[in-house]
Amino acid sequence: MTALPVIAATAPSPILLRETIDGGVAVLTLNRPAARNSLSLELIADLHAALDLIARDDGVRAVVIAANGPAFCAGHDLKELTAHRNDADRGRASFSRTMTACSAMMQAIVLLPKPVIAAVQGIATAAGCQLVASCDLAIASEQAGFATPGVDIGLFCSTPMVALSRNVPRKQAMHMLLTGEPVPAAEARAIGLINNVVPHGTERDAAIALAQRIARKSSHTIKVGKEAFYKQAELSLTDAYHYASQVMTDNMMAQDAEEGICAFLEKREPEWKDK
Amino acid sequence: MTALPVIAATAPSPILLRETIDGGVAVLTLNRPAARNSLSLELIADLHAALDLIARDDGVRAVVIAANGPAFCAGHDLKELTAHRNDADRGRASFSRTMTACSAMMQAIVLLPKPVIAAVQGIATAAGCQLVASCDLAIASEQAGFATPGVDIGLFCSTPMVALSRNVPRKQAMHMLLTGEPVPAAEARAIGLINNVVPHGTERDAAIALAQRIARKSSHTIKVGKEAFYKQAELSLTDAYHYASQVMTDNMMAQDAEEGICAFLEKREPEWKDK
Amino acid sequence: MTALPVIAATAPSPILLRETIDGGVAVLTLNRPAARNSLSLELIADLHAALDLIARDDGVRAVVIAANGPAFCAGHDLKELTAHRNDADRGRASFSRTMTACSAMMQAIVLLPKPVIAAVQGIATAAGCQLVASCDLAIASEQAGFATPGVDIGLFCSTPMVALSRNVPRKQAMHMLLTGEPVPAAEARAIGLINNVVPHGTERDAAIALAQRIARKSSHTIKVGKEAFYKQAELSLTDAYHYASQVMTDNMMAQDAEEGICAFLEKREPEWKDK
Repeated sequence: MTALPVIAATAPSPILLRETIDGGVAVLTLNRPAARNSLSLELIADLHAALDLIARDDGVRAVVIAANGPAFCAGHDLKELTAHRNDADRGRASFSRTMTACSAMMQAIVLLPKPVIAAVQGIATAAGCQLVASCDLAIASEQAGFATPGVDIGLFCSTPMVALSRNVPRKQAMHMLLTGEPVPAAEARAIGLINNVVPHGTERDAAIALAQRIARKSSHTIKVGKEAFYKQAELSLTDAYHYASQVMTDNMMAQDAEEGICAFLEKREPEWKDK
Repeated sequence: MTALPVIAATAPSPILLRETIDGGVAVLTLNRPAARNSLSLELIADLHAALDLIARDDGVRAVVIAANGPAFCAGHDLKELTAHRNDADRGRASFSRTMTACSAMMQAIVLLPKPVIAAVQGIATAAGCQLVASCDLAIASEQAGFATPGVDIGLFCSTPMVALSRNVPRKQAMHMLLTGEPVPAAEARAIGLINNVVPHGTERDAAIALAQRIARKSSHTIKVGKEAFYKQAELSLTDAYHYASQVMTDNMMAQDAEEGICAFLEKREPEWKDK
Repeated sequence: MTALPVIAATAPSPILLRETIDGGVAVLTLNRPAARNSLSLELIADLHAALDLIARDDGVRAVVIAANGPAFCAGHDLKELTAHRNDADRGRASFSRTMTACSAMMQAIVLLPKPVIAAVQGIATAAGCQLVASCDLAIASEQAGFATPGVDIGLFCSTPMVALSRNVPRKQAMHMLLTGEPVPAAEARAIGLINNVVPHGTERDAAIALAQRIARKSSHTIKVGKEAFYKQAELSLTDAYHYASQVMTDNMMAQDAEEGICAFLEKREPEWKDK
């Protein structure tokens, strides 16, 4: 697995690194280790911008979000968050902008027409836990941990719980939110927050390998399927079947389905056109 | 447990066998083993017709769906699905009919006023996995496996995911859908796709025994409860309680609730009228 | 841990005991052990009244619901439920009143702006299982068990399933509802119905200790978060993020968030104003 040089067009900031790995996998690495990779407004904006570029970049077929340093992501940057306390509105407008920007970035992961995999090497707390929950898939080190400890500082993890509660059963989500206590990786896997636990130090490679396996599939098919997944999840059974039947019929008309089914019946590897 | 002779009225096709077992259990057996029990239009129609007959048949109190051969069900019949590629519309109308017919059959399982239990002896893939997910309950051999591998042939398992994602947590469903990789029976149980794993070769008997236990209960009560289960699942908490309270009050007025409660208080076995 | 004397204002009935424990934890104890703590209309009313008092009582920061005797709660009181069978309407109005009162009490737990933890020492069946499912958190003895056996007496557990199916995956909920068979504590934990299993006899203390840990946090923050949790769960992802971002911004303006974040940045313990 060879890391290609960073592509200039993506304008990486020092706080967010971007590599492109063989097979069309982009790795975005949170790089504020001294600040435990907390989501400053700049990092939120850089992540959102990187996702927007990736959405339009045909060379990227799957995304890994990783982090440098001992922590994966400690949530919002509390110093920055409180910097506007002395404004006339005691910071309300500033808080609102931060929450809106962060929620939009999290939804950009869900809306991205490519799979996004978290590679969690350390603790993922508050909006950091939300970042993991917002990804389509997640691989974690056996030393990783997950928590929504906002309750300990008087600020309930209300936006993180939007993502968390769509991954994890209700009582387990409530326990995390009400106690703020950390959940070790093995327990996080048991309750559905992550897909797999691997030896510490191998989580990044494991996430990249998973991304490469998915990247070998038709990117058109992945795009169609990911979009439909989140859309049908909010429909009634009848409406979901009506919608998914249409998606499937459209999918059948695509070149990649024609090629894929032919290749399967002819027992050969498909050659994707990604459309 | 004695298998009664096949009932003529049910018009079994050679590709779908039907037996009625002691205690009012109908067993439908997919019988296209050479085609890995793939869901041809004929098999979809036969399944739907058999479910319609069972819905009106007071002698049937519970249903088991089993399969002959090494595979449980390999999803759609790809040769048949692509047979209309040379039509003027490149097959669109044909695909649409197949998806509509298959989705209607899957929903007929959910709407059937009797419990349906899958007995999974081998691999259940794509619409075969959807068939398992659509049943109320599922018992699997320890050798069974589950996958949604449409992504490998350019055709995302969009209709199967409607059923899958209503059984399995989000990240685990996404892993199956994006990778197409098989999930062994034990893992399928852990993530909620099936109820129980049994030694290979005993899954059919285990499903029949479970069906017989449920069949000994009031069929009116089962009908009321199954219908309410899927209906309340799509309501808000307030609306669900309002609806379920009405269902429960109506249920109390039924003969079987009167008899069941009396029998319980008198410490004797109830005699159901099934109304 | 010292049990304070029962507070007179709460007007405890003999069938529902109330203690206030150090740290602002109210313990409500179901006390009809000879009737297996079944939910008579009087007990439902007493529970609802106790919850209403607690909602307005600033001294209470968290609630534990426990029970005396070998059973936690056996559901509705069947003798009482059938006492109006000889009315002109065969009891319909009476049943309807009971279901409405019970559903309102269960929803009062969800709507209570303080966390509610079940301490389950024995079997919790039918509306007793619903009571556990309705609590925010639940701790159980390793000897506890859970069941929805209404199906055995002709009366499907339709109102219990509203709460159950919002805790437990679909196939596991259906197995409980269709078979009526009990689920041991360890399995109940695996499927998400409870949070933790502890040695028999320690479940009450474990629930109180958990309640005390949560009670040390800002009660304003807990109130905001609990309300938002159940509300956002019924919204689409977009609407949930819009709503939660507003909740989080409002939360940031509260005194306790200001104090909590300051205390965190200054590495000291926060002093909550609970507003």
